[in-house]
Amino acid sequence: MSSTTTTAPETHIALVGAGTIGLSFVALHLQSLPPTSLTIIDTRPDLPAHVSRTLKTTLPPAQHALIPSLILTPDITAVRNASIVQESGPENLPFKTALWAQVEQHAPSSALLWSSTSGIPASAQAAHMRDRTRLCVVHPYNPPAVMPLLEVCPSADTSADVVGRTMAFWRARGRAPVLVRREVPGFVANRLAFALLREAVYLVEQGVVSLEDVDRVVEGSMGPRWAVAGPFKSYHAGGGEGGLEGFFKNIGGTVQSCWDDAGSVNVGERWEEKVFQEAEQAYGRVDTAERDQITRAVLEAVRRGKEGKNA
Amino acid sequence: MSSTTTTAPETHIALVGAGTIGLSFVALHLQSLPPTSLTIIDTRPDLPAHVSRTLKTTLPPAQHALIPSLILTPDITAVRNASIVQESGPENLPFKTALWAQVEQHAPSSALLWSSTSGIPASAQAAHMRDRTRLCVVHPYNPPAVMPLLEVCPSADTSADVVGRTMAFWRARGRAPVLVRREVPGFVANRLAFALLREAVYLVEQGVVSLEDVDRVVEGSMGPRWAVAGPFKSYHAGGGEGGLEGFFKNIGGTVQSCWDDAGSVNVGERWEEKVFQEAEQAYGRVDTAERDQITRAVLEAVRRGKEGKNA
Repeated sequence: MSSTTTTAPETHIALVGAGTIGLSFVALHLQSLPPTSLTIIDTRPDLPAHVSRTLKTTLPPAQHALIPSLILTPDITAVRNASIVQESGPENLPFKTALWAQVEQHAPSSALLWSSTSGIPASAQAAHMRDRTRLCVVHPYNPPAVMPLLEVCPSADTSADVVGRTMAFWRARGRAPVLVRREVPGFVANRLAFALLREAVYLVEQGVVSLEDVDRVVEGSMGPRWAVAGPFKSYHAGGGEGGLEGFFKNIGGTVQSCWDDAGSVNVGERWEEKVFQEAEQAYGRVDTAERDQITRAVLEAVRRGKEGKNA
Repeated sequence: MSSTTTTAPETHIALVGAGTIGLSFVALHLQSLPPTSLTIIDTRPDLPAHVSRTLKTTLPPAQHALIPSLILTPDITAVRNASIVQESGPENLPFKTALWAQVEQHAPSSALLWSSTSGIPASAQAAHMRDRTRLCVVHPYNPPAVMPLLEVCPSADTSADVVGRTMAFWRARGRAPVLVRREVPGFVANRLAFALLREAVYLVEQGVVSLEDVDRVVEGSMGPRWAVAGPFKSYHAGGGEGGLEGFFKNIGGTVQSCWDDAGSVNVGERWEEKVFQEAEQAYGRVDTAERDQITRAVLEAVRRGKEGKNA
């Protein structure tokens, strides 16, 4: 069935699922070196109108002319020419296992098979596949058209070749793929963010700080700092000559006292009503277009700053 | 003894401690609407040379002319004209309790008394004061000349007037003071950051991800996102129409699975050798001047973006 070889450029992309994440990936692919073809597979009856309407709000006007070049179809066998099949469907294990079993039958054997899942590991999704070496999670940070991170999370069965070609694809597009070496719940980015979120919920629930003030704290400290230098690099710098070891020597006592006193709230507990209400009162509807525009400017400031150094 | 009144502008600043934090505050004050006078109190014998050398590397050249206007002295009674006494001395309780008992004798009764401590609450520092209503922690995020956040952490004894004037001072200087309503170990910013750090250490120690890749994850996702919109605002936006409640409805299961699986490493445990070594190999000496320059550009991008929206 396969007419492409492993040495062919990976430029026939079939995207399964035209939700928020799927279409943000479409926007990203259209803005990168354009692929030879982009196929969007989704069974929703209003697919052409939905795709056109969404992309017109997210793509710069100069790129609206690319929208008619998209191939739109409900038919999964359209993966037959794909060099990449990228799934952003429902977060639902039966959907995904059935999908990959089908995709495997129709896609070229060299095609990269990627899932955007935020929680279902490749090993579980591949349960009904004959060849489990082909599947890899490529988890974006929402929205992928803006955020550089892609967590590349192979299962123990995923081949080194698939992982290597996946990392190379995203690096070539100027994104920031990171290899997650072992399947763990939530991968890496969400585990880190949710650890902070848990403590944030606790401090708001305890009345130590208001919900909006938590955001002001982060926006005025860790956010901009970590946009430039992640936590380890920052604390390594904070330790001066002694590096990260010096940092822990200096304020390890404070670190441990924070860890000892940390809250451990859980989903579904009593804090939810208060915290959800405080969020609604503080923010109502967030202007995500403005947020994304400013985020692009932040990423550009970091990029220019780091290039200036190397120039 | 006091010749100023509570209505006088707070423009006579006495800074105790000419370490990294203290001198970064000096740089900040010099770059803001200049105070009428800035006094630096420190007993180190090379104080003039040290102050001049440090400020010449942190201040823009146009402001080097301001350096000779600083009053430098080892004498704590120099707080006698201060409207603000800002302490950035050693993180050592006996030092701080003795200092405030002395400062209280010499400073005008209306003077604001601030400690930059990252870990010793105002209630403990005020132990030997007659009037404990006067002292307030004002904890910066390092370096304060760059980072907008100031955590204003009163004790239960600190007066509302002191808190109000402290918040007003920093707001008037365009900084981001946040009120921490109750004394808790580590205040708020460090508790949040260290919660994420703890999980980061765990994932590196477990071999799930490399130390440098943790930083790449954060730099490519949460960092830039949280520079623009803090965690609650981000997840409230992530829930779409349903807000933060919708977010937890959609992926609360993934959030809880991350919380259930989170690591709980401690200071002094076996991970330290591996992690400290990985940090040293990855980063050696960090160029903090470059980091601060890029961080200023990031903060400027956010400021311009948010003003553009309001314009």
